[in-house]
Amino acid sequence: MSSNIIPPSEQTSSALIIGAGGVGVITAYSLYHCGLSEVSLVTRSDYDHVVEFGYKIDSCDYGEITNWRPHNVYKTVEDASSAEKFFDYIIITTKNIPDGPKDSTVHAILKPVIEANYKLNDEKVTNVVLIQNGIDIEKEVLEHFNPATYNLCLLSGVQLIASTKVGPGHIVQKGKDHVSFGSFDKDDDIAIGQAKKLVSIYHNEGHNTGVFDENVRKTRWNKLLYNAAINTTTALVGLDVPRCFEFSVEKKATEFEVFRPAMQEIVSIAASEDVSIDENLIEFFNDVTRNILYKPSMCVDLENGRLMELEIILGNPIRIAKANGVETPTLKLLYNLLILVQNKLKEQKKLIEFDEEILKLVV
Amino acid sequence: MSSNIIPPSEQTSSALIIGAGGVGVITAYSLYHCGLSEVSLVTRSDYDHVVEFGYKIDSCDYGEITNWRPHNVYKTVEDASSAEKFFDYIIITTKNIPDGPKDSTVHAILKPVIEANYKLNDEKVTNVVLIQNGIDIEKEVLEHFNPATYNLCLLSGVQLIASTKVGPGHIVQKGKDHVSFGSFDKDDDIAIGQAKKLVSIYHNEGHNTGVFDENVRKTRWNKLLYNAAINTTTALVGLDVPRCFEFSVEKKATEFEVFRPAMQEIVSIAASEDVSIDENLIEFFNDVTRNILYKPSMCVDLENGRLMELEIILGNPIRIAKANGVETPTLKLLYNLLILVQNKLKEQKKLIEFDEEILKLVV
Repeated sequence: MSSNIIPPSEQTSSALIIGAGGVGVITAYSLYHCGLSEVSLVTRSDYDHVVEFGYKIDSCDYGEITNWRPHNVYKTVEDASSAEKFFDYIIITTKNIPDGPKDSTVHAILKPVIEANYKLNDEKVTNVVLIQNGIDIEKEVLEHFNPATYNLCLLSGVQLIASTKVGPGHIVQKGKDHVSFGSFDKDDDIAIGQAKKLVSIYHNEGHNTGVFDENVRKTRWNKLLYNAAINTTTALVGLDVPRCFEFSVEKKATEFEVFRPAMQEIVSIAASEDVSIDENLIEFFNDVTRNILYKPSMCVDLENGRLMELEIILGNPIRIAKANGVETPTLKLLYNLLILVQNKLKEQKKLIEFDEEILKLVV
Repeated sequence: MSSNIIPPSEQTSSALIIGAGGVGVITAYSLYHCGLSEVSLVTRSDYDHVVEFGYKIDSCDYGEITNWRPHNVYKTVEDASSAEKFFDYIIITTKNIPDGPKDSTVHAILKPVIEANYKLNDEKVTNVVLIQNGIDIEKEVLEHFNPATYNLCLLSGVQLIASTKVGPGHIVQKGKDHVSFGSFDKDDDIAIGQAKKLVSIYHNEGHNTGVFDENVRKTRWNKLLYNAAINTTTALVGLDVPRCFEFSVEKKATEFEVFRPAMQEIVSIAASEDVSIDENLIEFFNDVTRNILYKPSMCVDLENGRLMELEIILGNPIRIAKANGVETPTLKLLYNLLILVQNKLKEQKKLIEFDEEILKLVV
């Protein structure tokens, strides 16, 4: 552990950010910049570099920053959990891959620090904040931790940002940070209060934007319009977004026969749980990266041999659709194709084993 | 040109096989073995090797053959066309990629030899035999050559075989050869007679199988059940057939939500032109490679950076469906995704050019 010399006052909150990629580091810096919280960051592979040199951040929100260190840096969640420190906000910015290796699922990552918080003080609220893609991501946490037992509030963060780790301890942020915070349970007044407090320690006027969102699930559905239709397609075909438009029949078929039908199905699923998506967002999300040489996350993950966030982006919406009797032919076909690709990745990573003699999965 | 010492008698037919891959060489050998035709073969990259050493063929139909040479070997179609030799049967076994480079389309390949035949003897029938996948492949030839002008018969060959070129002049045939020959125009009595004659010079009892097929278009539709559904899917996900079954949700979704719906759409398109596909074939084609570690041609082509036979396997059936008002949601989505992949290949091959500054196709 490396402790920064600035001692936190009694009035500040304590925040632990898990996931020190392009997004997590900017999230940590935003809290730090605001000055109202003691900021701890788990940074596995970059730990030694960051302890020695700090971060170098080229940010459209904050300018050029060098030698920056959060108040505390930990190499693992276990180390943070052993620090005898209570974290008011445990903020996860990792990829969410429930079908991935057991020790990298969100509930497994959270376990030591939720338990450590509870041991240190079972009367203070622990806020678990998921700044991640997808829908129904809170269910995995709820299945493993009873909020009443652990005194938990589950908070939802939907982030728009473009930020990348370009080297050890080096972050380049090109797209402004905008996070909508709210309670997963919109009737949980305590969680709503905690979400509002989080906004107050996160938002830096003139720099980034943190807003309280009373219907953050709707905001999740909105963002899924893009991810379920465009992120998935680019992964399947291995192309950036403008090429997906340009390479299609009459330069139209990708938009009108893939993206828009897939988005319409997301609108229908959301409607089946009384979430009304503004259909202008279909225009917006078709256009938002049409003229940017941009490869979405699933496409990049696949190209780098990393598992994709398939279940939270497509699996969960399709399960909601099935439960509510909504037809989703486009999303289902994309999902059934991407499941095969996801399992190809899992075989490469030896997470599953296919026996070429008997031609069956054996693990 | 390398001429074999066996002189053809006046009674034999003359056949030119274009495309000396795993399939073309066995096709040439079958004609040669039958002994009723003078066999000429265009073999580009293997020419020098074959002239010097002949072919080595390990065949489940014919056993082990070494130092085999067709009667005539040519390096190019142009060379064959300059040989002052009339070919009764011009047999094409190349890939059929109408959207590929202009000089590799079927009509461009055929042009010199059709014209040379016509110059040599405009009263003898020239049979153009397409032993290729897909549907409506005769249209491209008809658009460029008026059969009446050139005295052409267009014959259709639907082949089941597993044969691969494993090295220069070295062919391994693992699956028995079975070809259905017929006339593209089933009312063309002259072509029907020519197809029957082709069977008689091709079929080797006890070895391979050549049969006359009075409804060879139906046989093409039958084979499309496999290619439109399974060949396409394996290409998109980059997996062999048994993995596509095993890696799917509950080991069922690929079959029941991708393959079978796609096959049912082929059945519907065929029905719209009064071709009734036996639905037992859906079972057959689902099972035929379920337990073989086999990657279909489009998957292999993509992995090797070669263009795929997308237009004749999916584009043409979808165009027929559109003309006849048949809904094909599964095939269309597969097609719209594969078009993007095909164009990715074309960009790699510099057949098209995408300008990353203006984010548009410029060629």
